[in-house]
Amino acid sequence: MSLKPVTPAFVDTLHATLPEGALREITPNYLEEPRGRWAGQAGVVVAPDNVEDVAKVIGLAHEASVPVIPYGGGTGLVGGQIVSDGPAPVLLSLERMRAIRGIYPEENAMVVEAGAILSDVHDAALEADRLYPLSIAAKGSARIGGLLSTNAGGVNVLRYGNARELCLGIEAVLPDGQIYHGLKRLRKDNAGYDLKDLLIGAEGTLGVITAASLRLAPRPAGEGTALMVVDNPQAALSLLSMARDHMGDGVSAFELIHKAGLDFLAETLPDIRQPFAEMPEWFVLIDVGLARGLDPAEALETLFGEALEAGLVSDGMIAQNETQRHEFWEVREQIPEANRLIGSISSHDISLPMSAIPEFIATAPDHIARLGEFRINCFGHLGDGNLHYNVFPAPGESRADHLDLRDEVKRVVHDLVHEMEGSVSAEHGIGRLKVEDLERYGDPAHLSAMRAIKAALDPVGIMNPGAVLRGR
Amino acid sequence: MSLKPVTPAFVDTLHATLPEGALREITPNYLEEPRGRWAGQAGVVVAPDNVEDVAKVIGLAHEASVPVIPYGGGTGLVGGQIVSDGPAPVLLSLERMRAIRGIYPEENAMVVEAGAILSDVHDAALEADRLYPLSIAAKGSARIGGLLSTNAGGVNVLRYGNARELCLGIEAVLPDGQIYHGLKRLRKDNAGYDLKDLLIGAEGTLGVITAASLRLAPRPAGEGTALMVVDNPQAALSLLSMARDHMGDGVSAFELIHKAGLDFLAETLPDIRQPFAEMPEWFVLIDVGLARGLDPAEALETLFGEALEAGLVSDGMIAQNETQRHEFWEVREQIPEANRLIGSISSHDISLPMSAIPEFIATAPDHIARLGEFRINCFGHLGDGNLHYNVFPAPGESRADHLDLRDEVKRVVHDLVHEMEGSVSAEHGIGRLKVEDLERYGDPAHLSAMRAIKAALDPVGIMNPGAVLRGR
Repeated sequence: MSLKPVTPAFVDTLHATLPEGALREITPNYLEEPRGRWAGQAGVVVAPDNVEDVAKVIGLAHEASVPVIPYGGGTGLVGGQIVSDGPAPVLLSLERMRAIRGIYPEENAMVVEAGAILSDVHDAALEADRLYPLSIAAKGSARIGGLLSTNAGGVNVLRYGNARELCLGIEAVLPDGQIYHGLKRLRKDNAGYDLKDLLIGAEGTLGVITAASLRLAPRPAGEGTALMVVDNPQAALSLLSMARDHMGDGVSAFELIHKAGLDFLAETLPDIRQPFAEMPEWFVLIDVGLARGLDPAEALETLFGEALEAGLVSDGMIAQNETQRHEFWEVREQIPEANRLIGSISSHDISLPMSAIPEFIATAPDHIARLGEFRINCFGHLGDGNLHYNVFPAPGESRADHLDLRDEVKRVVHDLVHEMEGSVSAEHGIGRLKVEDLERYGDPAHLSAMRAIKAALDPVGIMNPGAVLRGR
Repeated sequence: MSLKPVTPAFVDTLHATLPEGALREITPNYLEEPRGRWAGQAGVVVAPDNVEDVAKVIGLAHEASVPVIPYGGGTGLVGGQIVSDGPAPVLLSLERMRAIRGIYPEENAMVVEAGAILSDVHDAALEADRLYPLSIAAKGSARIGGLLSTNAGGVNVLRYGNARELCLGIEAVLPDGQIYHGLKRLRKDNAGYDLKDLLIGAEGTLGVITAASLRLAPRPAGEGTALMVVDNPQAALSLLSMARDHMGDGVSAFELIHKAGLDFLAETLPDIRQPFAEMPEWFVLIDVGLARGLDPAEALETLFGEALEAGLVSDGMIAQNETQRHEFWEVREQIPEANRLIGSISSHDISLPMSAIPEFIATAPDHIARLGEFRINCFGHLGDGNLHYNVFPAPGESRADHLDLRDEVKRVVHDLVHEMEGSVSAEHGIGRLKVEDLERYGDPAHLSAMRAIKAALDPVGIMNPGAVLRGR
C-alpha cells in the first residue's frame, strides 16, 4: 500500500471531525527548519487541543494512508520535522496541548502535555522548588514532545541523564490511532515491554507523544561555576575525574571549549565578554550543585588548587555571584550562534567513549586537512563524551565556496568516529539528515529489528515517513 | 506454525555444531525456582561460552521451531526461567559466559558477559575504585543477563536507577539468530530506535542478552546508615523529603520496615540482633553516600535533630562504624528469608505513586480483612514507591490452610494498586506468574503494541514462550 496525499476531501473530513480552531493556516514557520537545508510542505496543519482529537486525526490518516508529520517547537537540527517530497502530509502540531497537568513535588514528578515549552516547564518546576534538569540552547521554543521524540540531551546529561532518563511515563497515539495511556508516575514498573523508551527517540516514526510524566530533581542547596584552562583534552578528562572524586554526583556540567569558539565569538558577537585576557587553547566550564554544608565556590577553589598542583590546569576563575555564573555560561551558550554566523561547511554531533576523545581530537584534523584548509571548532559536553565537531572555511572564505566538500568532510569525520566505537548521532537524532549514515554505520541486526518494529506498529508507514528509516 | 519439542536428532545437530562442553547434563537446579511453584522441563541444556555459539543455538532453534528458555542465575521470583508445559525446550544457560571483558574507570563503564554473577561484578568495580550500584538480596547467584532481562531493581534505585538505567549498551542474539552488536560505552547515542531498552525487561522473549556495557558510579567519599522510628508511612515520606533537602542525591537507600518484619525475624531468625529494645510500629533505614567535606554520621545526626523537632521521628540510631552499618542492613536483608520461613499466602511486588503510599497502606488491610484473618508484612523501597506487600496466615496457622484464598488475596491487593495508578509488577517482572495480571491491568494499546513487536521479532514464538505474553 502506498501513501496518499492530503486531498480536499480529506481536509473536509478533518473539518467535520475536529472542533473549531483545530485546523490552522499553513504558515511558513511550519515549513522551515533552523539550518535552512530543506523546505517543507504540508497538505493541512492541524493542532488538536486534546489527545482524543490527536487520535482521531491519526486514525483518519491511517485509514486514508495519508502521511503525518508530528511538529513540536520546530527546533530540530536534522530535519525530522520537515518533509520536502512525497505526498503532501498532515502536519500535526502539538502547540495547543501545553498544559502542565500536575506537579507532585513530594514525588519529584510532573505531568505535562507535549506542547509545553521547555522553559515553561523549567519555571513550573522551580515554582514547586524542584528542577527539571533537561536544558538545551533552544529552551525558549523547544516543546516537551519534540524533546522526548528526539531524546534530547544538552548540558546536564552528565548528572541527570537524557530526556529518556528524565521521563517516567508517556501518553501517546500509536500509528493506528490507539491511545497508549502510560502516564505513570512510578520509579519501578516492570509490567511489560518498555514501549515508553521505544517511542522516546523514535522521532515520531512510531507514534506521537501527547503528554509525559517527567522526573524532577531536588534543587541543589548551592550552585557554582568555574572556568579552568587546561593544556589539552586529556588534562580536561583527568580534571573531570578529579572533580568527581571531590564532588561525586555534584558535577552537573563539564563543557570543553576550544579557542576557536572564543575567536568566533570575538569575530561575530563582540558584545559577549571574553573571559580571558589571553585566549587559551582549551578550557572547560564546570558547573556544580552541592548539598547543604558545602560551599560551591570553596569546593571549586579546592579543586582548582589540587588540579594546579597536579599540573592539570594553568589558570582559572570561579564565579563569585550569579551575574558571573551567567557570564560564564553565556560564553558557552553563544558559541552555536557564533558558529551559525560564521557558517559551517559541515557540523557533527558525535559521541565517543570518554577515553577515546583525546585521540580523536588529536587525529581528526589531519584527516580533514587532506581535503583542504579548514577551521575546526570542537566543543561540547565532554562529561558525556559528546562533541560538536564543526568544520568551517578558512578565514576570508565562505561556506558557499566549500559546500561541494560537505559530504566528504562528513564522511571523514564519521568514519573516524565509527572506527573509534562512537556514535554519529549523539543527541540530535537521525531525522532526514542522517538516514544514510544510520544505514552505513548502524549494526545490521539493529537495523533489521528497527524495520521489523516499524512495519509491525505502522504497517502503512504513515508516521513521519522518510525520517530515521528510508521510506519504502 | 507451532512449536516443536527438542528431538534426539536436534540434540545430535547441537552436538555436531557446538564444541565439547557446551552441552550440559539436565540437573535439577535448572528445573527449580526459588518459590517452588513450578517444576521445569528441558529437552537439552546448552551453555555456550561465546556469543557466536549462542547465535548458532538460536538459529537452529529458529529453523526447527524449538522453544528456547534463557537461563541466568535462576533467582527470578515470577517463573520466567521455568517452563513446565508445552514442547520440551532448549534451556540456554549463560553460566559459561562470565568474563569481565573490560573495565574503564575513567569512563565509569565496564563490559561484562551475561553470565557474570552480580557480586563478582561488584568486586571487579570496587577493585577499580568504582561502584556498580545495582544490589539485590540474591547478589551471590543472580547473573547480569538475568538482571537486565528482568530490569532488576533493589535497594539503590532511588539514587542510581534500575538495571536499565545502569546499562549503556548490550550485545544480544535476536530470535532469528542475528547478533546485535550494541556494546557501546556512550552516554549519548541517538542513532536509531532504543533496542537496548526494549530487550531489557523483555524477560528473554525478544532475544538473549549475551553481554552488557554497564554504567559505574564514583564511590562516595563517605557512607553512613541510620535507623529512624517514624509514626507512620506519611511521616516516613516527609522524612525522605527532608533528607533530600539536606543531602540531595546523597540519599542512596530509604527502606520502610514494619514491626511485622521484626516479629518474623524474632520468630524465625533469633540470632539476628534486634535493633530496638521496644519494637516500633514503623521505622526506616536510611543509607547515604556523601561527597568529600561532609561527614555522613554528622549529616544523619543533623537530619535526625531536625526531624525530631518537626515531629517526624521519635527515636533513632546512627551507625558508628561499618559493623553497625552491616548490622542495620542485616535486619533489612534478612526479612525476605524470615518471610520465607513463615510462609506467605500471597506476596506482592507493587509500586505506587509516592504520595499514594500512605493511603494504600491505610486502606489495604481492611480490604484483605474481608477475606479472613491474616498477618501483613509490608516493607520495601519506599524511596522508589516500591512495596513488598506480603500476606501471611494468622499465628498458629499455616500457609497450606489458606492457599485456596491466594488468588482472591492477590486480586484484592492488585485491584487496589491498579485503582491507585500503581503497578502490579514493580521490580520482579511478569514471568509466568503475572501473565494474567498484565492482561487484566495492562493498557490495551500497550498490550497490542507488545504483541505486534513480539510477532515481528519472533514470528515463530520460540523465545521463552509463555512468559510475559500468553503463548499462541
